Amino acid sequence: MKSFYESQQINEKKLFELFKKADDIRANLKKYDKMLSGKIMATLFYEPSTRTRLSFETAMLKLGGKVISTENAREFSSAIKGESIEDTIRVISSYCDCIVMRHYEEGSALKASKISSIPIINAGDGKGQHPTQALLDAYTIFREIGRLEKIKIALVGDLLSGRTVRSLCYLLGKFSENEIIFVSPENLRMKDDIKQYLDKHKIIWGEEKDLQKILPKVDIIYITRIQKERMKKEDYEKARGKYVINEETLKLVRKETRIMHPLPHVEEIDLPIKIEQEDKRIVYFKQAENGLYIRMALLLELLK
Amino acid sequence: MKSFYESQQINEKKLFELFKKADDIRANLKKYDKMLSGKIMATLFYEPSTRTRLSFETAMLKLGGKVISTENAREFSSAIKGESIEDTIRVISSYCDCIVMRHYEEGSALKASKISSIPIINAGDGKGQHPTQALLDAYTIFREIGRLEKIKIALVGDLLSGRTVRSLCYLLGKFSENEIIFVSPENLRMKDDIKQYLDKHKIIWGEEKDLQKILPKVDIIYITRIQKERMKKEDYEKARGKYVINEETLKLVRKETRIMHPLPHVEEIDLPIKIEQEDKRIVYFKQAENGLYIRMALLLELLK
Amino acid sequence: MKSFYESQQINEKKLFELFKKADDIRANLKKYDKMLSGKIMATLFYEPSTRTRLSFETAMLKLGGKVISTENAREFSSAIKGESIEDTIRVISSYCDCIVMRHYEEGSALKASKISSIPIINAGDGKGQHPTQALLDAYTIFREIGRLEKIKIALVGDLLSGRTVRSLCYLLGKFSENEIIFVSPENLRMKDDIKQYLDKHKIIWGEEKDLQKILPKVDIIYITRIQKERMKKEDYEKARGKYVINEETLKLVRKETRIMHPLPHVEEIDLPIKIEQEDKRIVYFKQAENGLYIRMALLLELLK
Repeated sequence: MKSFYESQQINEKKLFELFKKADDIRANLKKYDKMLSGKIMATLFYEPSTRTRLSFETAMLKLGGKVISTENAREFSSAIKGESIEDTIRVISSYCDCIVMRHYEEGSALKASKISSIPIINAGDGKGQHPTQALLDAYTIFREIGRLEKIKIALVGDLLSGRTVRSLCYLLGKFSENEIIFVSPENLRMKDDIKQYLDKHKIIWGEEKDLQKILPKVDIIYITRIQKERMKKEDYEKARGKYVINEETLKLVRKETRIMHPLPHVEEIDLPIKIEQEDKRIVYFKQAENGLYIRMALLLELLK
Repeated sequence: MKSFYESQQINEKKLFELFKKADDIRANLKKYDKMLSGKIMATLFYEPSTRTRLSFETAMLKLGGKVISTENAREFSSAIKGESIEDTIRVISSYCDCIVMRHYEEGSALKASKISSIPIINAGDGKGQHPTQALLDAYTIFREIGRLEKIKIALVGDLLSGRTVRSLCYLLGKFSENEIIFVSPENLRMKDDIKQYLDKHKIIWGEEKDLQKILPKVDIIYITRIQKERMKKEDYEKARGKYVINEETLKLVRKETRIMHPLPHVEEIDLPIKIEQEDKRIVYFKQAENGLYIRMALLLELLK
Repeated sequence: MKSFYESQQINEKKLFELFKKADDIRANLKKYDKMLSGKIMATLFYEPSTRTRLSFETAMLKLGGKVISTENAREFSSAIKGESIEDTIRVISSYCDCIVMRHYEEGSALKASKISSIPIINAGDGKGQHPTQALLDAYTIFREIGRLEKIKIALVGDLLSGRTVRSLCYLLGKFSENEIIFVSPENLRMKDDIKQYLDKHKIIWGEEKDLQKILPKVDIIYITRIQKERMKKEDYEKARGKYVINEETLKLVRKETRIMHPLPHVEEIDLPIKIEQEDKRIVYFKQAENGLYIRMALLLELLK
């Protein structure tokens, strides 16, 4: 693996290697703090994101590497002058050792990785994928539930625009006997390509309208935000507020179940801070922290 | 002190400790250049500021620490997707060792410090405070005048929106026999909360319309910019140009008096560059430089 | 030389010293990786640019220095509050060891260098100059052709707004027997000041409308983008698409000739990626890479 543009690239063996490495980094941070010294990572973000960008930058810094960065490449880079993504990548790749890239167009990371002489990491490409999010999601499931097979998981919310659920499906498809339940507003249902992929990999999946019926039955509730910025106003109004985790619905969730969210969350999670901090079922902030270690493991994999 | 969100948190003893530390850093920079190695500081700026952000980042780098940064969190971060400041802080604080934060809402730094597991430094919260500016202001007064008590100081300009004058009043209130004269346009007068605070601390204060009468009588003239961006157009037009330091009014200022300004200045200071560079009474560029050392001292205090 | 604001500042001797240093850095990167440790460079960009900013930042990091940065100073810095460039420079220069600055006003870098206590490097000032681009252009010509005199060069495209061609003319004027052919749309011709400079330095120059006639006759074709953002819409429409390097026109170019471009390019170069990657005549991506090494050499020159 030279570049990482889609979660399907990772096989079972490699995934567990990354988990093991991430665990070791977490336990022995000091041991790793010069591993990438002399290396430079560029973050090239054409779409808003502070969380993901800072997570990658922190990962690189904690490994002893250095960072060059642009947080609004769409407006500030030569893109505004009409330059192709290929040309931008060719120039930037002559400066550094890897590029972490977020772009508004599906497929842009793959396009970039074809021309690049250095590793490209996809940090989100339009409605395409967000494969390092899938890594941290799988890592979180494994840490919380202890396995990646025989998982019953509800994917809830905006399954049409949400690239994190797509990337996660590709990963879960690699393991046996998982069961996926899609719970989404009528106008934001999961696309057929994912369903066909799951069929091909013999993963049981279903669609369900009633979240309350599902809540007591699953190991993982993975809820996502309705992505207002990626749809028409009427679609947003139709979809919002349908599926919410609040103190009421939380009562339906078993003690062993875990509630995940790629963050940021808005009204689809409506819980007091105290519960978010103390309830063991709520793991979305742990998820974000896990992201740091799994990204460190990935950078080591690609750059060492 | 874990976080620093308002200048009142600093007592007399701690203030002089910081001054002493800042002096030592200035004299022995080399000694400090690895003190925070391995530490990461995040700058999270929801409002425009290059000066303050770069000052903090330089401070961290000169102490051997590292920096992750966003200069337009309002637009680029998840804030635009509707995420609460608490959630943002919880995620970012899992990446780093302290957060320097500027936000457009009064009270946001306090709110952040309540949820955060790591130190929060307030770099300006709306019309609230800018406490590290107060530190560098007090540090400058002390270096220039040799004391922080029995100071006669005129605070001039936009006393309604200016958070630096508010933060400075809180600090000056800790010392005895200071006297504060507020000189502001009618529509931009200092608010009552500060006046009550000063009364409580037995600090003499007054209001004065005529700057020229005041100029010969004070130790410090602290003039501020009319903050156009925080008021209605008609308020700005009413207030601007009333109080100006120029070659004419400068003649009224005693040799021992010092003229301070939090910068940036516009028309309220109208002096040739040569005078700004050579006249010992003009200390606002020294003030900015002092800021670097006092922020280094503060970072050491919070992170060591 | 304290600051570098225009390419004329560099004489023949200094230019070859920089080339030699750049070659040595390229060959022995490791030797240089701590040379500027302890130094801080600020990048202060009032105009969009990712390429140039990241090139400078990489150069500094590879020399062991540190970087503070703002990619949108126009909006985020105190400029928006009305602060003069002189004041900004005076404050920022108290934080760091050199400032790399891009500004929308011609002459701003010179203005900054007059007030600054530390080196200023001009990374583009409006329609003025972009002198480090001229350095890397000259360095590329030297590496490709083996000399900087007796060069026959066509400067093609937007010669009115293009600051890189201006800076390059100033450098080429220092060497004997060069010949420059200006090929531009009628409304974007090179300005008289450059023509007078070339006359004064006894450089032969001419203007030519027919690119095809010129292509077979020169050592260097230096083509530039029509800078839409610096002209009226009707001027752009009049000028675009007139001069294009495509598979057809490329046939007219001799084997020894080199095609350069300051990048980003848009429609004025219309070649398949495969040709761009394999044809030895195409050197514009090499040019960008050369920029990194020549900027490292320049930083060493100004900061060591």
